[in-house]
Amino acid sequence: MALIVQKYGGTSVGSPERIKNVARRVASWQAKGHRVVVVVSAMSGETNRLIALAKEMQTNPDSREMDVIASTGEQVTIGLLSMALMGIGVKARSYTGGQVRVLTDSAFTKARIVSIDEGNIMRDLDNGYVVVVAGFQGVDGAGNITTLGRGGSDTSAVAIAAALKADECQIYTDVDGVYTTDPRIVPEARRLESITFEEMMEMASLGSKVLQIRSVEFAGKYKVKLRVLSSLEELGQEGQGTLITFEDDIMMEQPTISGIAFNRDEAKLTVLGVPDRPGIAYQILGPVAEANIDVDMIIQNIGHDGMTDFSFTVPRGEFARATAILDQVKGHIGARQIAGDNKIAKVSVVGVGMRSHVGIASKMFRTLAEEGINIQMISTSEIKISVVIDEKYLELAVRVLHKAFDLDQAPA
Amino acid sequence: MALIVQKYGGTSVGSPERIKNVARRVASWQAKGHRVVVVVSAMSGETNRLIALAKEMQTNPDSREMDVIASTGEQVTIGLLSMALMGIGVKARSYTGGQVRVLTDSAFTKARIVSIDEGNIMRDLDNGYVVVVAGFQGVDGAGNITTLGRGGSDTSAVAIAAALKADECQIYTDVDGVYTTDPRIVPEARRLESITFEEMMEMASLGSKVLQIRSVEFAGKYKVKLRVLSSLEELGQEGQGTLITFEDDIMMEQPTISGIAFNRDEAKLTVLGVPDRPGIAYQILGPVAEANIDVDMIIQNIGHDGMTDFSFTVPRGEFARATAILDQVKGHIGARQIAGDNKIAKVSVVGVGMRSHVGIASKMFRTLAEEGINIQMISTSEIKISVVIDEKYLELAVRVLHKAFDLDQAPA
Repeated sequence: MALIVQKYGGTSVGSPERIKNVARRVASWQAKGHRVVVVVSAMSGETNRLIALAKEMQTNPDSREMDVIASTGEQVTIGLLSMALMGIGVKARSYTGGQVRVLTDSAFTKARIVSIDEGNIMRDLDNGYVVVVAGFQGVDGAGNITTLGRGGSDTSAVAIAAALKADECQIYTDVDGVYTTDPRIVPEARRLESITFEEMMEMASLGSKVLQIRSVEFAGKYKVKLRVLSSLEELGQEGQGTLITFEDDIMMEQPTISGIAFNRDEAKLTVLGVPDRPGIAYQILGPVAEANIDVDMIIQNIGHDGMTDFSFTVPRGEFARATAILDQVKGHIGARQIAGDNKIAKVSVVGVGMRSHVGIASKMFRTLAEEGINIQMISTSEIKISVVIDEKYLELAVRVLHKAFDLDQAPA
Repeated sequence: MALIVQKYGGTSVGSPERIKNVARRVASWQAKGHRVVVVVSAMSGETNRLIALAKEMQTNPDSREMDVIASTGEQVTIGLLSMALMGIGVKARSYTGGQVRVLTDSAFTKARIVSIDEGNIMRDLDNGYVVVVAGFQGVDGAGNITTLGRGGSDTSAVAIAAALKADECQIYTDVDGVYTTDPRIVPEARRLESITFEEMMEMASLGSKVLQIRSVEFAGKYKVKLRVLSSLEELGQEGQGTLITFEDDIMMEQPTISGIAFNRDEAKLTVLGVPDRPGIAYQILGPVAEANIDVDMIIQNIGHDGMTDFSFTVPRGEFARATAILDQVKGHIGARQIAGDNKIAKVSVVGVGMRSHVGIASKMFRTLAEEGINIQMISTSEIKISVVIDEKYLELAVRVLHKAFDLDQAPA
């Protein structure tokens, strides 16, 4: 008898029939004796519909009002799922973020969770209810409705699991687990039984969009056991998904790397010939950050003759805006030139085992070289190596790396 | 410089373009120096869409969850209207019922307002904001979302006007005022400059669906000045609508009756041959009330030989259910027979002047008799006389009564 938090995304609740399927799955877990809290997203398409309406009102919709509107998507789902559960004889009760209450800061459209009051939920669980909570949303201290930003329902689920000290947080999605890489590119890709939080964070941030990265961070911080499962599998025939664990739980014999991640939604920008002096990185990135453009990789190599080059990547949709900002900054900082390329892709090998093994980087670089793929940028962390390459080589790079690291073979 | 509460219904906010029109109208009032609070309904069609979704989940949707879902309709509108106002340079801020907060009882789907906290709204008004409030909704003492039932946005507007001690509560609708009767039936029908609360209550409850009756009751109780206006008139060319006043304000010379109201959404039920003893009315109507069926007219004439007949009318959609209940009750109370008819209509003459004038009733009955229209039931109050007739004579009855009482002539 465990306390389980389950999260179902927009696709899983995308139609009345699918919501009824979710209800049956939730009921099957309760029937096994578990106490279940369900966190849901808006029905797929709903959030986009609401955003489109907002944009008809105001070119740049006010963020407080955007959250008032966007939060209704999940609110509809919690009501519908609670009804569907009652319709099959399961006691259920819904909560909006504000009703839980999920207290956040006041950063509308991208709020961060401050605390969660578990009192209402625990009382209902004790009384035999399935508790259905709206993901993605909360309230700030003044009672304003906030949202956590796209994909925030994962974060809601993990945060609630942490607050309730749940035994497991199950993220239901349309894939049956985390794979060594995207099976659409490499048919031999394998489902991983488990993956560490650190690896998952790298995989998620690099474009394996199974889980939102903030939710993984949260889970790691609060030691919440996360499992990725498919909501499409037949009841009674479910797989085990992929468990996301702490490093300590993983056996020493695990393979060196866990997967190949990639992201084609990036563009790179380089500021050439900037004076190599303290504060220059801030002068370049400060205006970009103020414009709320997310920056991913940041690379600065050693300088020559008092000058250096500074590169970073941004989401492809922000390329034009970021370029415009740099063009303004250029004069200020005395840079020679701004260069950019939005036809790039990032490919990474990820693995917690990497840090105790030499040769991973050289194997990666050699594999790419053998295919004639030029590496434009390199960045490494303790558990990943990322390279930026020409977008057109992306699929090829992923395939050859997957093979080079024997990811198509089950671990011994 | 007045404090004005305006209410716009679902048709007035039925599309992005219409919401922008509302924003322009609101802005024009603020530009005249008024402080404006706007109460809005869900975009037309939205509430029905949500109810349809709910019914796919559960044959008889849970009422608490129904309110969670239904309340999102207005929540979307307040965000959109606030954005539209900001889009034309007007400071605006939205509030859900819970955020205001509009405290109600816990009767989900038909809650009653207990109190309204005016603090947030007044503070924002003082700071130059237009405040946009979701109609139709509130929260109960435990923080559950409640709705006031269909048409409840009018009630929200009046209650907020009362709490704010507003100078006027303007109900914008798709007609430009209250008419002596339905102009679709009698082309000569005239817009009334003013009408008393009591008359308006009779007109509203009898089917002149300009205003929801609860809002009129509320307005009368809290002395809120109500005005019905059209949201379709061009800016700068607006009419005065119809002011709903207290009787004291009306001149003595006013015409005897104000209008002809009617309702074809009724069915009549008669319990024939019931013992004429104390408690019998309760035994008949108790089970009907418990089934949450609204009862309109109730008629019991004097009995004969210890037996009497008992009649009442219900909304036509409840006819089958009410009949089934009476069939069960019949044995209990020793009634001889249950009779019913759902092809009836109710026609009423309404006028506060009526109480000081004899002859209204006889004129009404004579007019109907001259057209060969049989009267099935009669019921009177201080300011109205209602008759139930065969549905097929409805239009004829309204026309001849409108003419008989000279309603097509402007008052002297």
